[in-house]
Amino acid sequence: MVWDSLWTNVHLATMRRGDGGSYGEIQDGALAIRDGRIAWIGRRAELPQDYRVKQHHDGGGGWITPGLIDCHTHLVYGGNRSNEFEARLNGVSYEEIARQGGGILSTVRATRAASEEELLTAALPRLRALLAEGVTTLEIKSGYGLDLETEARILRVARRIGREFPVRVRTTFLGAHALPPEYAGRADDYIREVCEVMLPALLGEELVDAVDVFCEKIGFTPAQTERVFFAAQAAGIPVKLHAEQLSDQGGAALVARFRGLSADHLEYLSADGISAMAAHGTVAVLLPGAFYFLRETVLPPVAALRAAGVSMALATDCNPGTSPLTSLLLTMNMGCTLFRMTPLEALQGVTCHAAQALDLQQEAGTLETGQAADFVVWDITRLADLAYHIGANPARHIVFAGQPRL
Amino acid sequence: MVWDSLWTNVHLATMRRGDGGSYGEIQDGALAIRDGRIAWIGRRAELPQDYRVKQHHDGGGGWITPGLIDCHTHLVYGGNRSNEFEARLNGVSYEEIARQGGGILSTVRATRAASEEELLTAALPRLRALLAEGVTTLEIKSGYGLDLETEARILRVARRIGREFPVRVRTTFLGAHALPPEYAGRADDYIREVCEVMLPALLGEELVDAVDVFCEKIGFTPAQTERVFFAAQAAGIPVKLHAEQLSDQGGAALVARFRGLSADHLEYLSADGISAMAAHGTVAVLLPGAFYFLRETVLPPVAALRAAGVSMALATDCNPGTSPLTSLLLTMNMGCTLFRMTPLEALQGVTCHAAQALDLQQEAGTLETGQAADFVVWDITRLADLAYHIGANPARHIVFAGQPRL
Ligand SMILES: [Zn+2]
Ligand SMILES: [Zn+2]
Repeated sequence: MVWDSLWTNVHLATMRRGDGGSYGEIQDGALAIRDGRIAWIGRRAELPQDYRVKQHHDGGGGWITPGLIDCHTHLVYGGNRSNEFEARLNGVSYEEIARQGGGILSTVRATRAASEEELLTAALPRLRALLAEGVTTLEIKSGYGLDLETEARILRVARRIGREFPVRVRTTFLGAHALPPEYAGRADDYIREVCEVMLPALLGEELVDAVDVFCEKIGFTPAQTERVFFAAQAAGIPVKLHAEQLSDQGGAALVARFRGLSADHLEYLSADGISAMAAHGTVAVLLPGAFYFLRETVLPPVAALRAAGVSMALATDCNPGTSPLTSLLLTMNMGCTLFRMTPLEALQGVTCHAAQALDLQQEAGTLETGQAADFVVWDITRLADLAYHIGANPARHIVFAGQPRL
Repeated sequence: MVWDSLWTNVHLATMRRGDGGSYGEIQDGALAIRDGRIAWIGRRAELPQDYRVKQHHDGGGGWITPGLIDCHTHLVYGGNRSNEFEARLNGVSYEEIARQGGGILSTVRATRAASEEELLTAALPRLRALLAEGVTTLEIKSGYGLDLETEARILRVARRIGREFPVRVRTTFLGAHALPPEYAGRADDYIREVCEVMLPALLGEELVDAVDVFCEKIGFTPAQTERVFFAAQAAGIPVKLHAEQLSDQGGAALVARFRGLSADHLEYLSADGISAMAAHGTVAVLLPGAFYFLRETVLPPVAALRAAGVSMALATDCNPGTSPLTSLLLTMNMGCTLFRMTPLEALQGVTCHAAQALDLQQEAGTLETGQAADFVVWDITRLADLAYHIGANPARHIVFAGQPRL
């Protein structure tokens, strides 16, 4: 056996799904890499006799987990909305802010006005914050363009991030995020544009790994959502959904029927929605940053999801309006503190279950032979430390596709 | 005029108290340093004709604020309590954890068992996290020793941090934090030990800048608090108080009557407490990290404090049991999101008002001629960005006593 590199003096949390309700802990472990993939993993005492290795790394007694996966972000956009944040806290009403052109449409204007280079530059501090905490896989949605040209520009920036930075990027087309002003009063016409013009063109450029919709009273109806899903299905692209964030629209059951990868938010999820998700293996992506920032009081039904065996993921929902959050470790703490998930569930939520929400479970999210060698060596004594600390970053080494990044 | 250094290509937020309800913004400003202090500050266009300067710094168009001040921390302790965090989320009750020796007394045991070197090493990641976000002044309390030897060790570590790192440290003796197990059932005897043995000995070693008490049903009574305050007063040391966190004990009015620097927590603060604080200039130190971590639902009376003209500060309360938080920027966001403070109040809360809570208003917390040259150059376009972002760190340069630290 000849390996490119070998990590020892570490403990391992494999996060293998087969290990069910455990971290898959291996005390005093070893992890070998070849061609960017995990070539061997197990107890150091059980290393084969005859291995040879080019580079030996000392993990300093830390814990190795899979690289973190942020499976729901709107990372690429122009401007920010700190002015509205400040105005609201100074007593200006939402209505007044909307009258002054604020809200999501202000982000759409800023994004449409920005070049590809400007969008990349604006996203970089957010990207770097996530990467510094050990994120090695990242989903990025469009949805602040709401026209073909700008949606394409956002998704091209997302692809560039995947090419130019040490991170695996999955793109999601969220054309049906909000109604663009030029379609006011003509939502069905816009949905036709999304399905018949935008999606085919973006697919032609290979910019779309999944399709998403914002199904809500203030977004699109279940019928409109279904039209987008049919278009995606016809193209062979998996779907996911912003569902049940502000009210129960039956969106979770809808996306589950389409064998969707995930239903996201879910504060107002019904028992029927949970059953449908469990039946079809749809992941529940919980977004405590938006819950926190919006001071929501209705909790997603974590205990019922747990009881039904639905996989739960956690993500930042990084966006300028409802979750200007760029820390996946803080998201883990919020999952525990606000949603009463366990530290194990929080770590599953940003590793194996997040991989499942991106259809990457054969590639990332666990430490197993054959998986991409994406992992983090943490300077912690217990795995629960990752969810317990608030505002700390104990990442000591970050490895992407076998290469140390930190 | 000969200066050591000059910063230009920056905007300034002076945070001067005289500027009342504003950031004290100076667009296109300049800031000159001599002997570690601010020698000149104003609009660049108004720089004197005849200055000479040894070193010129370009602020890259960012915003300069005073260095951040974390005016309430328990930074120095042994162990952590992530095991209890995980146990509670797995359904183990507080009572069961206490029966197993958990809670604050587990931190006391770990702290008593740690050497000075070990306590410093344990505090370093927390210290580094705070410094990286622009903290230049830090309060550190004792209170996990509960015997003279260990309280002294904690405070010596605090003093060492002030000597060995680029940060100004103020120490607070919090011997009356909890009842040590060896005094079970004899709280008054322990208070006598605090007043007659521990305080004089620690003062003799010059380890005490202020004295604090945890006044609460599960802490010490107002009468016991008063005994500690009399002892501090007799020694000429200012007092502060953990007050009204879980119930209204009248602690805020008590500490105000002693002309205390601050009353801290204050979720259950009464109108009488507010009046007393306003009358005596006692700062309200709000601790949203503990509110968040404990899932408290009663909010501190921010609107009433604002109306009464009480200065409000914000701090991390960094501690292993109720606020394992090491981000003062996140604390600012929590102050806005959870407590509905404005971004201006949040910035005042970690600059000028925090300085007041440490009796350092003549030294730090504002950008004025004569103050220590402690400041941060932020890579932001609006000052509200500091409180708006969650989990980002836009610090570009951090300057302590005139010397760039980053
Ligand atoms: Zn979203
Ligand atoms: Zn405290």
